[in-house]
Amino acid sequence: MKVGNDYYTGIWLNQKDPHIVQIIDQRKLPHQFEIIELKTFKDALHAINDMALRGAPLIGSAAGYAIYLASLEACNNKNFDHYLLDKAEKLKNSRPTAVDLFKAVDMQMDAILKGKCDAEKVGIALKTANKITKDIIEICKNIGLHGLKLIEDISKCKNGETVNILTHCNAGWLATVDYGTATAPVYLAQEMGIKVHVWVDETRPRNQGASLTAWEMLNQGVPHTVIADNTGGHLMQHGLVDMVIVGTDRTTLNGDVANKIGTYLKALAAKDNNIPFYVAAPSTSIDFTIRDGVKEIPIELRDPDEVKYIQGWLNGKIQKVLLSPEKSPAANYGFDVTPARLVTALITERGICKADKKGILKLFPEYDK
Amino acid sequence: MKVGNDYYTGIWLNQKDPHIVQIIDQRKLPHQFEIIELKTFKDALHAINDMALRGAPLIGSAAGYAIYLASLEACNNKNFDHYLLDKAEKLKNSRPTAVDLFKAVDMQMDAILKGKCDAEKVGIALKTANKITKDIIEICKNIGLHGLKLIEDISKCKNGETVNILTHCNAGWLATVDYGTATAPVYLAQEMGIKVHVWVDETRPRNQGASLTAWEMLNQGVPHTVIADNTGGHLMQHGLVDMVIVGTDRTTLNGDVANKIGTYLKALAAKDNNIPFYVAAPSTSIDFTIRDGVKEIPIELRDPDEVKYIQGWLNGKIQKVLLSPEKSPAANYGFDVTPARLVTALITERGICKADKKGILKLFPEYDK
Repeated sequence: MKVGNDYYTGIWLNQKDPHIVQIIDQRKLPHQFEIIELKTFKDALHAINDMALRGAPLIGSAAGYAIYLASLEACNNKNFDHYLLDKAEKLKNSRPTAVDLFKAVDMQMDAILKGKCDAEKVGIALKTANKITKDIIEICKNIGLHGLKLIEDISKCKNGETVNILTHCNAGWLATVDYGTATAPVYLAQEMGIKVHVWVDETRPRNQGASLTAWEMLNQGVPHTVIADNTGGHLMQHGLVDMVIVGTDRTTLNGDVANKIGTYLKALAAKDNNIPFYVAAPSTSIDFTIRDGVKEIPIELRDPDEVKYIQGWLNGKIQKVLLSPEKSPAANYGFDVTPARLVTALITERGICKADKKGILKLFPEYDK
Repeated sequence: MKVGNDYYTGIWLNQKDPHIVQIIDQRKLPHQFEIIELKTFKDALHAINDMALRGAPLIGSAAGYAIYLASLEACNNKNFDHYLLDKAEKLKNSRPTAVDLFKAVDMQMDAILKGKCDAEKVGIALKTANKITKDIIEICKNIGLHGLKLIEDISKCKNGETVNILTHCNAGWLATVDYGTATAPVYLAQEMGIKVHVWVDETRPRNQGASLTAWEMLNQGVPHTVIADNTGGHLMQHGLVDMVIVGTDRTTLNGDVANKIGTYLKALAAKDNNIPFYVAAPSTSIDFTIRDGVKEIPIELRDPDEVKYIQGWLNGKIQKVLLSPEKSPAANYGFDVTPARLVTALITERGICKADKKGILKLFPEYDK
């Protein structure tokens, strides 16, 4: 997608040296555009842990490449498989909520361990990482096509007037690899000449909306307005939101949706005001093994300082300011779960379905066991 | 209430010179404790406009003193009444949502214009301002006593285990003059030895929770935890909130509640999780002339820069950092309206009542016309 006059994706291999993985340092956006080189497994793990990259699908892709980097290192190790299994375990312990991570690691390990020699295993690791990434791009493109129809319908109902879409956090191309999940339909609608406007929740505590989604929209030329997370309910009460589209970090077989903390509150407000609430859910984020999201999805508890301090741009550099009294404790829950009953529909790469077992399995019958 | 080892109220007359009104500069809390002297009407108007002081009841009290300061200036003016009426109009245009402001100004003007000479009018202005302020303190104390029973009941149900109370924004003593509205029951409960813990919503965009409520709790020794506004729903889903108490800037005769933006979202979450949602509503904040809050209460639209920039403490001073892309537009709605159907009850100075016309008029029959 566009960054000024250039085009980027969320992750890519260095063109000259395919032993190096490159990403955009999302911690510095929208203020600084910097590219990080991941040369070792440790680099990749740190990038995931420290949220230099984030977003469930991109974490999946990065996990794939992290295992590839680990496989390069494993060649210098006595026991290739043991080294790799250890790294896979470390990756799985890095972020607990997004299921894409676990799926990508399992996919890699299943494939690699079938290899006959170290060199073959490295080859498989690269091929699998590339495949995971290519698949994500394809999935996002298809989510865009299916979601586009929903926007088109509202646009027609409004006789071509602007369709106001509210989104929470960043489920944009920065969170995936390309197109985004929640944003893919928006970008496609704009390309088709449909008038759209996006309400961008700032998404405290890490402000992925104000920093990343707004930056994406600005680069893509999509009309948008940044709002405090508190604002969505008021806008909905006053007819200023036509639809909500959010991403997901993990969706259960019953259609419960774990997404960035605060998503549940927007879903409640949408329900209360009869506004459709859509979740752009790539199948990679569906956890077919669990049902009750509130009970079963582990919610990441992050550093309280992310609540107490906030980072922004001041005097030509990124700086952190303290918001609350230094001695006041804070709590930092990363995600919440929106029960399926509040979700109008899931937008998957295979089409739109009701957020329930029947709807999901109709689109993904291979998981109907 | 306590500030370190000293005791303060939200507004007071200078002890040596009663022509000077003093307030705490709330824009600098929790980082700096500074007292501002309001010597002219213009000083007072600016303090209200620029939110050096805020909170519906305190705005009411400050409006009373602003008119008193204006009356002192009016003595040097050819037409006392005309000067004062002009200032009253300016005050009424300063902040549109809190009804306490309008009530205080009307009460002042009604009283003053009955005075026979300028000197008498000034005397009335001072007396009325003092009365408005004294009444607010009394009201808050009584709200505390009535609300205390609600906390006691939950504490008993939990066999004395900690009662977890969520609050949004600052309806503490800083927002009133003393005790606070939403916080008064909490402070009383703590005094009575009941175990309480307060979840403090940070309350973007101006962070009155993280900065003011947390600071109050810290000074008062009440256990508390600062959370991002997005967090309340998750906590409620997991049984970590026993009750919600918030303040109000304007309550309609039907029980609809205008309060800091985001309150509505917490009310929805409370309803969805069967958690009682109480509004500490001094009668000064009840607008007996209107019914439908969503349609009839004007919502203040403030400077978008309050969303785009955030202020905090860095290198020994208060500084502002930019959060979003400079070119991204932002919108800053100050309040939202929680429909009465989501409010478990109002806690008024005369007791607890259902948030509807019948309940309100039973406690305040003098408004039953």
